[in-house]
Amino acid sequence: MAQPNLEPTVCAGDVLGAYLRSQATAFLRGLRLHGESAASGADAAGGFDAARSLRGAARRISGSLATFRVVTESSWADGLRTELVWLSSTLADEHAYAARLDRLMDALHRLSGGSEVPSPRGSAGALTVGSARAGALLERQLTLARTRSHSATLQALGSARFHAVADAVAVLASEVPLDAVAARGRVDDVLVPLAAVAETRLSAAVAALPSAEGTHPYNADHDGRWHEVRHLLRVHRYAREALGDDVTRAAAAGEALDRHRDAAEAAAASATAARTPRIAPATAYALGVLHADQRHEVEAARFDFRQIWLPAPLASSGGAVTPR
Amino acid sequence: MAQPNLEPTVCAGDVLGAYLRSQATAFLRGLRLHGESAASGADAAGGFDAARSLRGAARRISGSLATFRVVTESSWADGLRTELVWLSSTLADEHAYAARLDRLMDALHRLSGGSEVPSPRGSAGALTVGSARAGALLERQLTLARTRSHSATLQALGSARFHAVADAVAVLASEVPLDAVAARGRVDDVLVPLAAVAETRLSAAVAALPSAEGTHPYNADHDGRWHEVRHLLRVHRYAREALGDDVTRAAAAGEALDRHRDAAEAAAASATAARTPRIAPATAYALGVLHADQRHEVEAARFDFRQIWLPAPLASSGGAVTPR
Repeated sequence: MAQPNLEPTVCAGDVLGAYLRSQATAFLRGLRLHGESAASGADAAGGFDAARSLRGAARRISGSLATFRVVTESSWADGLRTELVWLSSTLADEHAYAARLDRLMDALHRLSGGSEVPSPRGSAGALTVGSARAGALLERQLTLARTRSHSATLQALGSARFHAVADAVAVLASEVPLDAVAARGRVDDVLVPLAAVAETRLSAAVAALPSAEGTHPYNADHDGRWHEVRHLLRVHRYAREALGDDVTRAAAAGEALDRHRDAAEAAAASATAARTPRIAPATAYALGVLHADQRHEVEAARFDFRQIWLPAPLASSGGAVTPR
Repeated sequence: MAQPNLEPTVCAGDVLGAYLRSQATAFLRGLRLHGESAASGADAAGGFDAARSLRGAARRISGSLATFRVVTESSWADGLRTELVWLSSTLADEHAYAARLDRLMDALHRLSGGSEVPSPRGSAGALTVGSARAGALLERQLTLARTRSHSATLQALGSARFHAVADAVAVLASEVPLDAVAARGRVDDVLVPLAAVAETRLSAAVAALPSAEGTHPYNADHDGRWHEVRHLLRVHRYAREALGDDVTRAAAAGEALDRHRDAAEAAAASATAARTPRIAPATAYALGVLHADQRHEVEAARFDFRQIWLPAPLASSGGAVTPR
């Protein structure tokens, strides 16, 4: 029964089908765990982990359906992809607000001197006055937003729309609707060129990013282009994953862009909180410091991404580079 | 009349005397120019340049008198040095307030979007609301401080104490009071070891600086140690200048520490302004951003100093380093 030299007979449909089935299985497992943790009321740790793996599987399925669209039944793929994007973004909100609050509280703690160093004079002392109130304000605003998205998540998970998605993914776990012709092609002829298209799109977006010199850190004008790179890097990474390639570097670069997005959103939340009517000047001052701090984290994340992702420069000078 | 091979006959007193005489001459020229520009009312450009060269000469004389104290008549050197330190610090204040205001205004302009990029959304827009008022507040406070130090400078320049300093420097320009024995020694035996002591003191202070990792940028606790390194670097540089050595690297490192001092003082001025009673939250927010910005400039200056001054690390990794 053993077939020696099996590889040449593996076709595009086999590889893509195996990847989609494994992700569909992960999706369903995450869904089950999410439901269990919601039922048991143990929302914090288990629920977050379940929601995270659910979102990860949803993103991998929708990303692969986009990249390898022509290898699948395209109209089915388009429909499922739309629904998965809706679901994962709905699920992401609640987690994002919680993570943003954690990030801002950590930063405030650090900025106001934290537990590390007692600060007898000047700036840090002045900051402590407002940072407690700034923290309370941010907590109130972000907890409210988080509660709203928790309700939205519960509503979504109880909707007919959600049950239709879950049913579609359950079908996908056993049977992937493929394009009969394209799926029979060789991996190198079909999947590899499609993955290369995703990579080309990413490279073009990276090349079009504004240079590090021309920007200043408090300007959020360029954030959108960086968020787009983050999205394209994910699509690229999932395509490579489907092909069984090593994605370590893409994952590390993606983490830098996740930090970039988180810091940009945290800076925006701080600026929003500073526009709250009738806050004390000390509170506004602390929010200003916090905003600037998070924008510097944005810059640091951009620097980290470039270090990880862009080709290393010639090691001629031997000097280190400062991200200014 | 020509003496072949003159160098071995040059003694410590000749080298130190020539340096002190040239600096005394520069001091007197600066003093004359300062008086002329004050009389003509052209205070802005010419007056600042004259005061700058006056201060530079005063620092070089007092620094050399400290390093090479034993080569001079020590009691005379100690007295003149004390008076020169008083004079140069008095002269420095007015310029420092003006420079601080310029630095803060430039930063505010940059932070609020400046003329470079119109900023339709979020952070920069919110910042613009408060930055104009923050700028007006800082201008009021720093202009007041500058006016006070201008009066103090005028009072100092009219004082008997000042005229005594000017007389002493006028004597120095023609005749340097030296220690008869030490001044006859060879340069290598007398001046070089004394300059090495100044360098050792600097190296010890640099080695004792807190590591870049352990600090966070909003904490001013370590500023004093950096300001002390700036002072010791100047003393070292002037000692090397007196010996005719190349001081390019020391001058560049000193510029980084000047920026460090300026940014630290600007950050403190912003924090002080934020404690003004009854300011609007938007103003306080802008001052918070400004404070954090200047503290990041402090960090960048520390990074620059290390890059210029510390021995280059082994170029093994080839990677660049981010100053976090």
